[in-house]
Amino acid sequence: MAKMEDVGISLLNAKEDQYEGVIVNVEEPMDSMAFASLLQSSMRSWRERGKKGVWIKLPIEHVNLVETVVKAGFRYHHAEADHLMLVHWIPNTADTIPANASHRVGIGAFVMNDKREVLVIQECNGWFKGTGVWKLPTGTVEEGEDICDAAVREVKEETGIETEFVEVLAFRQSHKCFFRKSDIMFVCLLQARSFDIQMQTSEIAAAKWMPIEDYAAQPFVKQNSGFDSIAKICLENSNGNYTGFTPLPTISTSGKKTYLYFNKHLAGHLFSSEDHQA
Amino acid sequence: MAKMEDVGISLLNAKEDQYEGVIVNVEEPMDSMAFASLLQSSMRSWRERGKKGVWIKLPIEHVNLVETVVKAGFRYHHAEADHLMLVHWIPNTADTIPANASHRVGIGAFVMNDKREVLVIQECNGWFKGTGVWKLPTGTVEEGEDICDAAVREVKEETGIETEFVEVLAFRQSHKCFFRKSDIMFVCLLQARSFDIQMQTSEIAAAKWMPIEDYAAQPFVKQNSGFDSIAKICLENSNGNYTGFTPLPTISTSGKKTYLYFNKHLAGHLFSSEDHQA
Repeated sequence: MAKMEDVGISLLNAKEDQYEGVIVNVEEPMDSMAFASLLQSSMRSWRERGKKGVWIKLPIEHVNLVETVVKAGFRYHHAEADHLMLVHWIPNTADTIPANASHRVGIGAFVMNDKREVLVIQECNGWFKGTGVWKLPTGTVEEGEDICDAAVREVKEETGIETEFVEVLAFRQSHKCFFRKSDIMFVCLLQARSFDIQMQTSEIAAAKWMPIEDYAAQPFVKQNSGFDSIAKICLENSNGNYTGFTPLPTISTSGKKTYLYFNKHLAGHLFSSEDHQA
Repeated sequence: MAKMEDVGISLLNAKEDQYEGVIVNVEEPMDSMAFASLLQSSMRSWRERGKKGVWIKLPIEHVNLVETVVKAGFRYHHAEADHLMLVHWIPNTADTIPANASHRVGIGAFVMNDKREVLVIQECNGWFKGTGVWKLPTGTVEEGEDICDAAVREVKEETGIETEFVEVLAFRQSHKCFFRKSDIMFVCLLQARSFDIQMQTSEIAAAKWMPIEDYAAQPFVKQNSGFDSIAKICLENSNGNYTGFTPLPTISTSGKKTYLYFNKHLAGHLFSSEDHQA
């Protein structure tokens, strides 16, 4: 954890980042008094070397050090189940520490069979519990998961139906959905590859194929402008008059495969598939 | 903080949530030993009453209680600068605690003047520093901010140019962009309302209007499939051959105004503006 510098002072091990900052990843158990002393010497050294943002990642098993780090002037940046990330900005200039993740991302899945019936469910929990409203299957995009994969996975998990992703028909951004966080929900068109419903009983109270006109005509849907708009868009799509954004695999600056969702119906001719496969 | 029940046992004040859980918001300073004892009695009571998820919100000034809460079996859920949220699932069933926010949301702004020049910048920091690459202005959507407002704000902040939001031309989802978090970047078409650049010097090294063909022809852009695809889409849009998703104000189930982004060019006739204004 600690290292000795030439001058004989113990400092915390830290990696430099590309923004003139340092990251300390606390990997071994430590006494909080000893840590406080190391942190103080390290802060002095980082300040002298013109460092800006200092990050400390504390795994939850080293929770005994949280108070020490906060008392040294750090604030929380973000937390995951197994660790807490704290940050401190050294210079007297405006802090350019990047924002925490601000959005959860979800999908709503529009799946039809060849009888113009849409796959709908009722949920066991949450806002819609006991309302009798039939809704499209929805779910949360998991950490590191592509939107197009999440839609296929959620439909399979909730209803057992196999599908293939087609496109994003629309998306909705909402605020203060979960504590102070926002949501973006992508309405996805999927092509059904199987039709026998196998309902997941832990989250889903009922699932069925429902004539799309009946889905759109539900009083709750008609009275709610968000639901009504999405139902109209799905209906329009089912009549062949509406298209959305299709995923194109591209490579990011750091070499990772990413999907760019765009209006392929207008610009698909610009991209040959060979150019863009990972 | 604590209340006395009929039986004479002190319990933590907690609010019930709509998922058979409870939320404790620690608002007053407390000794960690006293808190540990209260938490233990409260957990027993919640368990007896069939409660499921227990949330504890600890403002950063009560950092002395973090260790106590973790030792009582809680894990981190999320953190903001000023507080830490911990959670514990009581039943022996699968945990249905909602996921933490997983994405940062950003915008890239495509703004043209009437000479077919696009507004481009060079950044002082980060990946592109010193590369000489001219790129579209980009920025992060702030907590609670609409994507369409963020695009207008970022262009104004970085370049001084006044704009009006038109539509989302495409979006890109990338993973592990910032620790374990993902990004969604919306490429937004904005209409310029002013043309004199006033550069923000803290983040921007240079800004100018550049012929769109020169922007798209930069070697870095041509060699990077993500940038090249976006440049092709912007070029196609500048030629009047490409359209994206337009925001429609709708009302959510909880009565909040939300924007639904959709292909208005195909489905705009479905929505009269009176129906959907907030």
